[in-house]
Amino acid sequence: MIIILKPNSEQQNVAELIKTLETEYNLEVQRMDGVNYSILGLIGDTSALDTDPIQEKEVVKKVMRIQEPYKKVNRAFHPDDTIVNVGGFEIGGNRLALMAGPCSVESEEQIISIAKKVKAAGANFLRGGAYKPRTNPYRFQGLGIEGLKHLETARKETGLPIVTEITSVDLIDLFVDKVDIIQVGARNMQNYVLLRELGKCQTPVLLKRGLSATIEEWLMSAEYIVSGGNPNVVLCERGIRTYETFTRNTLDLSAVPVIKKVSHLPVIVDPSHATGLWWAVEPLAMAAVCVGADGVMVEVHEQPSEALSDGKQSLLPDKFSKLAEKLRGAAALMGKTI
Amino acid sequence: MIIILKPNSEQQNVAELIKTLETEYNLEVQRMDGVNYSILGLIGDTSALDTDPIQEKEVVKKVMRIQEPYKKVNRAFHPDDTIVNVGGFEIGGNRLALMAGPCSVESEEQIISIAKKVKAAGANFLRGGAYKPRTNPYRFQGLGIEGLKHLETARKETGLPIVTEITSVDLIDLFVDKVDIIQVGARNMQNYVLLRELGKCQTPVLLKRGLSATIEEWLMSAEYIVSGGNPNVVLCERGIRTYETFTRNTLDLSAVPVIKKVSHLPVIVDPSHATGLWWAVEPLAMAAVCVGADGVMVEVHEQPSEALSDGKQSLLPDKFSKLAEKLRGAAALMGKTI
Amino acid sequence: MIIILKPNSEQQNVAELIKTLETEYNLEVQRMDGVNYSILGLIGDTSALDTDPIQEKEVVKKVMRIQEPYKKVNRAFHPDDTIVNVGGFEIGGNRLALMAGPCSVESEEQIISIAKKVKAAGANFLRGGAYKPRTNPYRFQGLGIEGLKHLETARKETGLPIVTEITSVDLIDLFVDKVDIIQVGARNMQNYVLLRELGKCQTPVLLKRGLSATIEEWLMSAEYIVSGGNPNVVLCERGIRTYETFTRNTLDLSAVPVIKKVSHLPVIVDPSHATGLWWAVEPLAMAAVCVGADGVMVEVHEQPSEALSDGKQSLLPDKFSKLAEKLRGAAALMGKTI
Amino acid sequence: MIIILKPNSEQQNVAELIKTLETEYNLEVQRMDGVNYSILGLIGDTSALDTDPIQEKEVVKKVMRIQEPYKKVNRAFHPDDTIVNVGGFEIGGNRLALMAGPCSVESEEQIISIAKKVKAAGANFLRGGAYKPRTNPYRFQGLGIEGLKHLETARKETGLPIVTEITSVDLIDLFVDKVDIIQVGARNMQNYVLLRELGKCQTPVLLKRGLSATIEEWLMSAEYIVSGGNPNVVLCERGIRTYETFTRNTLDLSAVPVIKKVSHLPVIVDPSHATGLWWAVEPLAMAAVCVGADGVMVEVHEQPSEALSDGKQSLLPDKFSKLAEKLRGAAALMGKTI
Repeated sequence: MIIILKPNSEQQNVAELIKTLETEYNLEVQRMDGVNYSILGLIGDTSALDTDPIQEKEVVKKVMRIQEPYKKVNRAFHPDDTIVNVGGFEIGGNRLALMAGPCSVESEEQIISIAKKVKAAGANFLRGGAYKPRTNPYRFQGLGIEGLKHLETARKETGLPIVTEITSVDLIDLFVDKVDIIQVGARNMQNYVLLRELGKCQTPVLLKRGLSATIEEWLMSAEYIVSGGNPNVVLCERGIRTYETFTRNTLDLSAVPVIKKVSHLPVIVDPSHATGLWWAVEPLAMAAVCVGADGVMVEVHEQPSEALSDGKQSLLPDKFSKLAEKLRGAAALMGKTI
Repeated sequence: MIIILKPNSEQQNVAELIKTLETEYNLEVQRMDGVNYSILGLIGDTSALDTDPIQEKEVVKKVMRIQEPYKKVNRAFHPDDTIVNVGGFEIGGNRLALMAGPCSVESEEQIISIAKKVKAAGANFLRGGAYKPRTNPYRFQGLGIEGLKHLETARKETGLPIVTEITSVDLIDLFVDKVDIIQVGARNMQNYVLLRELGKCQTPVLLKRGLSATIEEWLMSAEYIVSGGNPNVVLCERGIRTYETFTRNTLDLSAVPVIKKVSHLPVIVDPSHATGLWWAVEPLAMAAVCVGADGVMVEVHEQPSEALSDGKQSLLPDKFSKLAEKLRGAAALMGKTI
Repeated sequence: MIIILKPNSEQQNVAELIKTLETEYNLEVQRMDGVNYSILGLIGDTSALDTDPIQEKEVVKKVMRIQEPYKKVNRAFHPDDTIVNVGGFEIGGNRLALMAGPCSVESEEQIISIAKKVKAAGANFLRGGAYKPRTNPYRFQGLGIEGLKHLETARKETGLPIVTEITSVDLIDLFVDKVDIIQVGARNMQNYVLLRELGKCQTPVLLKRGLSATIEEWLMSAEYIVSGGNPNVVLCERGIRTYETFTRNTLDLSAVPVIKKVSHLPVIVDPSHATGLWWAVEPLAMAAVCVGADGVMVEVHEQPSEALSDGKQSLLPDKFSKLAEKLRGAAALMGKTI
Repeated sequence: MIIILKPNSEQQNVAELIKTLETEYNLEVQRMDGVNYSILGLIGDTSALDTDPIQEKEVVKKVMRIQEPYKKVNRAFHPDDTIVNVGGFEIGGNRLALMAGPCSVESEEQIISIAKKVKAAGANFLRGGAYKPRTNPYRFQGLGIEGLKHLETARKETGLPIVTEITSVDLIDLFVDKVDIIQVGARNMQNYVLLRELGKCQTPVLLKRGLSATIEEWLMSAEYIVSGGNPNVVLCERGIRTYETFTRNTLDLSAVPVIKKVSHLPVIVDPSHATGLWWAVEPLAMAAVCVGADGVMVEVHEQPSEALSDGKQSLLPDKFSKLAEKLRGAAALMGKTI
């Protein structure tokens, strides 16, 4: 960490600041004097140090961090890729995770039928929402525990591991018992109470990027889980909020190479929620694979126009089947398989 | 709601759509044919209707809502201002709510000392965090229940009602018991499980705007609480995330007249968190009063440079005292008092 | 266009509005009465109609457009893809445009040397800036006409057509004389005086998306050029401004399928300026091809650390050569060649 | 400027970098070694130094600027407020600039009539567009030189100095001859060719903030004008582009105290264009005065529903008259007059 001192600061105040840093924070301080500014360099572990109080000191012009605030998820301290093992399937390795299914579980028949179709097409995970966080209090909020049971039945029928979203801390035991990957949705990415509790289990967590989260904040949320003891985190880019309104959100595919550069965690992409436009899903899924993502999550629905939520962005099973075929080509180009 | 049909649609498919809308959704449908497009107008209550499945129909080009999706918090259905009564103090009336205090409760002495000072300066509410949602898992997370108790002591000493942030559903009973206004922070604005439970109590809720929430989404979150049975919601604008980095967030003061126009709920402004710059708090607090806000929330700390969180944006008690004096002038200009 | 009337409007005022629309704007008006709202549907050509004055009428609640405001660049009225022919090379067809070169032309030797290297690697266009719009008035502003001459020399040596940015109307004649594709930079995307003049020549124009332009605004800028008489417009996505700061801008690859859906113009992608990070260029260029772009524009520099501008995002010729090799694979996957 | 070196860098490469900085850039370099990182501090004038090539050096992890890149408009080097004198009226002093008038000049009668009314209400400047930059090529583009002449006539009739927008370099002589303040619109804020030429005249320039310009970029655009020799720059905040769609843009009132802190230039606020909602103009104009702005620019139109552009955001003269009355109260509160 670097501290820029204000010009013409009282030397006694600077000396006090240095003393505080040395004694209270246990840091070594080096001083460098320039023409307009003097600088203090702090040597030691500053990752837990809150910069705001220092910023407040009368003699301080600016505090600049050098190191990233995340440690456990930082590639600098963990150079090898993390592979998240879900019942034998390795996310982050050479196989592409292809997660498919409806936005919401609507009935046992529906989810089993779709599960069979997406499996036949090549999906290796089944997704489907049982607990739905909805902006509108008057809309369908999901089947809840019934939905979870239907997902379990679909898993039994097809062998596909299941991914579904959690909305509250008190559901964790239930999810650990029933679910293969616990999804944390964009709106809960900074629900730190939930993240902290998920750090205490070992079930893999799919951590969606918050609607307006920076990549650093997203990694800090992952840090909550990993530092709590659960290393099995898979990140999921799902679009960020921008001024553009044609697409529901703006899919930030550059986040994939950035995550690969600064972190060791696997990262997948959800083009369905990002755009809200079914016809944009195929090209963006292809792009996601070719930008280096470890998987793709796609909404599939048998009759999108009847879907209880998010129909506009769902593919019909036929279209998904063609997409999966194209993704196999893209995977091969990247030296991977599905 | 209006449905724009695609040109050259099969008339049979259109007839089926109309039938679905009439029988399944119980709406009256009126049709209008233009040169390039035909339009269906839906007559009836469409507020709970999910537009996505309709959007998906083959014959549909676009679905356009005419009515706002919120009802209980909509001024159209509730023309009079809501006044939220907090132990006799009426937020939303002619007195300006002036909420002041530190970001975090750090000790009993600290909070009592500040409470006395902000009261002397003219504050009518004491704010202070006991449970802190922090981006960084390694930083101070608040004193928890100890902090709540210190706040109660400070209230006893000064008579100031207390406002503090809740972070989890399982704290609701505790907060209802101890707190005068329960604050829902920006990161929990779309924690629908929490909102729904807060709708079951009668304690006033201060609902901060999410970092990237539209005004409509913010009102939909208020709708969760009010439709659940708790009409005592005060909104709080605290800055939105934009590309500008000089200020921490961009304070959206235009949200105040917009809220006043479309909703009947009171709305206050927090310039401290919005900017993260103590020297910008005074001018923006003045602006907040003059734009028509029902109150202002300001961070005050005795030694900002020692604050365990958010020191950079806190005012010293002296500065707060001068600000309160200026705000009295602004209140008078607006026909209000503090 | 649809006009929603306010409830309980004076019938005489509504009648006046209808009369104005019929007589002044020459539109047919159909009326539909609902329970809460009445609606007017306007039949006829409303594309040049300014909605604001209508919005202002006392009886009007809201005006909703059904048709896009762009016509010449709208795929609805021009279903076939536009192919822009640049000296025999067809942008928008089955060959991928691969434009490469330095941010700035620095000397004749430099641009010839790079031109030869990028041509050997597979590039089919040479890019390089002679007139540079710089945020900082104290930095290198380009070689100007000398730079243009160096580009011409490089074209003579290699046969590569040249693409370079224009910054002012009075340069148009010079550019038409010397350049194969005139680039309009992001900062000039809404310089309507410049666009209108470019509509009067036939030289192909590469129109970069403005830093905060919506897709619709971008197409409206293309409409200025095409409606002026120059159909040879190639769009270029180069990243939009968002709150994320890790990358310089956020590359919006979803814009590519959207453009393909609503317009017939070709569209290419510039991952170098979008991210400002050389190591993100390769994955994003791959993604651009696989999302369906008609080409890629890449910065290449022999010694990036000496570049007079934008070195941080440039590839060394060797790296570019490897990228071109990979792009050939991606092109093949998409049924294209380079 | 500070350079963070990569850990384990080759000492010879570091030595070369230091030598380059000392000899080519004429800087003094101080080195500081920490546990994980070594740091170079650069002493000397680095304001014209391009950081990108340095960033590119193999041994460099990060380059951090300490000083702002703007100099002439920086309060650090010019502590006193700049007062821009327009025919005796001092913008930036104790009188509030109140600029009012229609979006577009539509006829001589129209502009004279409005000019008289806004003058009677208290306006001290007349605004009106003669050259209009419009997104849509099919809409009214302004009366051009005829409009300028009408403005001159209105000035003769009322004595109000006139403010109007320039759209192109070749209009500068005309504007210098006829206009009191030359407005540079948001879309031209980074039209550096235009800015550079405006730096060569002495006519005051009203520089609107670009739609997605940071405060720093805005100041850099002002730097173009001031460093060119024209110190008479007035800044104008007019809303920035965000994800919020209720208002046309988001008025960033925090920009006013920030500008006052870091620059000495006067700054005014345009709430009409920012929101696009006439009923939000009054509260935001009040807020603008109370946040410390040096003036307010307001659209006024006699029959907003007939306006050729931007009617939705215009006030009727009566409403403007009431607004001016209220602004006098706000000005008094701030120790100013109108």
